[in-house]
Amino acid sequence: MNKIVETMYANDLFSQWLGIRILEDGKGISKLQMTVRPEMVNGFGVTHGAITFALADSALAFASNAHGRKSMSIETSINHLKPVMTGDILTATTEETSLGHKLGVYHIRVTRGEDLVATFKGIVYRKEEHWPK
Amino acid sequence: MNKIVETMYANDLFSQWLGIRILEDGKGISKLQMTVRPEMVNGFGVTHGAITFALADSALAFASNAHGRKSMSIETSINHLKPVMTGDILTATTEETSLGHKLGVYHIRVTRGEDLVATFKGIVYRKEEHWPK
Amino acid sequence: MNKIVETMYANDLFSQWLGIRILEDGKGISKLQMTVRPEMVNGFGVTHGAITFALADSALAFASNAHGRKSMSIETSINHLKPVMTGDILTATTEETSLGHKLGVYHIRVTRGEDLVATFKGIVYRKEEHWPK
Amino acid sequence: MNKIVETMYANDLFSQWLGIRILEDGKGISKLQMTVRPEMVNGFGVTHGAITFALADSALAFASNAHGRKSMSIETSINHLKPVMTGDILTATTEETSLGHKLGVYHIRVTRGEDLVATFKGIVYRKEEHWPK
Repeated sequence: MNKIVETMYANDLFSQWLGIRILEDGKGISKLQMTVRPEMVNGFGVTHGAITFALADSALAFASNAHGRKSMSIETSINHLKPVMTGDILTATTEETSLGHKLGVYHIRVTRGEDLVATFKGIVYRKEEHWPK
Repeated sequence: MNKIVETMYANDLFSQWLGIRILEDGKGISKLQMTVRPEMVNGFGVTHGAITFALADSALAFASNAHGRKSMSIETSINHLKPVMTGDILTATTEETSLGHKLGVYHIRVTRGEDLVATFKGIVYRKEEHWPK
Repeated sequence: MNKIVETMYANDLFSQWLGIRILEDGKGISKLQMTVRPEMVNGFGVTHGAITFALADSALAFASNAHGRKSMSIETSINHLKPVMTGDILTATTEETSLGHKLGVYHIRVTRGEDLVATFKGIVYRKEEHWPK
Repeated sequence: MNKIVETMYANDLFSQWLGIRILEDGKGISKLQMTVRPEMVNGFGVTHGAITFALADSALAFASNAHGRKSMSIETSINHLKPVMTGDILTATTEETSLGHKLGVYHIRVTRGEDLVATFKGIVYRKEEHWPK
């Protein structure tokens, strides 16, 4: 496991609350999974949009920071394509679309089995500051 | 309190987990508040981006559904402007920028006292289906 | 050539002004190309962001309308990754990420040779109204 | 007139082609106007989305660069709310939502008289490089 991702995850209490499991990690790479629990629903009884967002946002943080430069989200957006229900297993898979000196662009697909349930885009600003070795 | 928002909030277990307090509600109107807790941090020890997103996303759902038509998020985006820390009190205030027959556009400001910590944009699709009276 | 795209392009005076060439078309498919001219620059002497946007936006319109249902842009966004200069040949290639009854989501890559110069996302609302046969 | 905006506009051949008139300028401020011409329509005979985008994108460039630091668009998005027709007079009015050391966030409203026809959001990256005095 990538050392930076390991450190981040150990401190990331909200990702732990979500029950996120790290399937893949590395520089520009992140594949995360979680199972939706009853306390994650919104006022319609379907999964709150912020839960799906959270999974993708953690994937963004892990993939972009794994390069060793502190990376902060500038803009993130999500499109919900299908309703997600309690018990569903969600997988977020990250594509590093572009990595420049200052900026990185990522597209993340959130799937439930074969179904694409959401697409997420994230732009990060890469600070000069490095993660400690 | 708006009946629809009351019903939504009663079912919205994730908003309850967040500790959201409804300061204002109504058709196209929503002002929500929450206090950030220790379990809401990310791998940097600052508040996970999805927490701020969640507050704004709930505000979007309450404001848009209060009109009486079921409204689903099509696209939501957030820009984080300042780091948010445990103990911070966040307030989300909704502006209904545009309300058409099929679509609504909302801009939400998330503040901590006088500080603007995030801006959020949400577009909803308004179904024909009405909330029960 | 798809009949709808043919009709659209014949009426689309701005795409004609841009000098757009249709390399591929079809249901959910669009690959367009153009060459940047001197009158398309911004105040920095590089290509105005709206030119790259325009190419991708036309690709969105052709790909989504080719299904035969009138499709209107709800939200479009672009990320400029590399500066584009006069004389550059730009190609926009469309991916139909999701096609539902009411909504379609598209991701478009704008390239110059091997270089990715911009990514574009478009969400369309699909009207009931059909294009005339 | 702000010297930087004056220089930018003098070089901005596409804004000139659009017929953009500068009503207000200054640090973080930009109010632009244009009249839609017949060659600006799309395949539906309504104004191409990129025209409205272009007006707002120029407003973003003028408002953000007027501070004296070179500012480049990272992410821009537009929501079209009402169709725009040939002959319409469009006005883009800029709000500087946030200005940090590295990043600026802007919201721009595009109106036709009293009607809001589009909303635009822009995030810029502020380079260290200054405009020449």
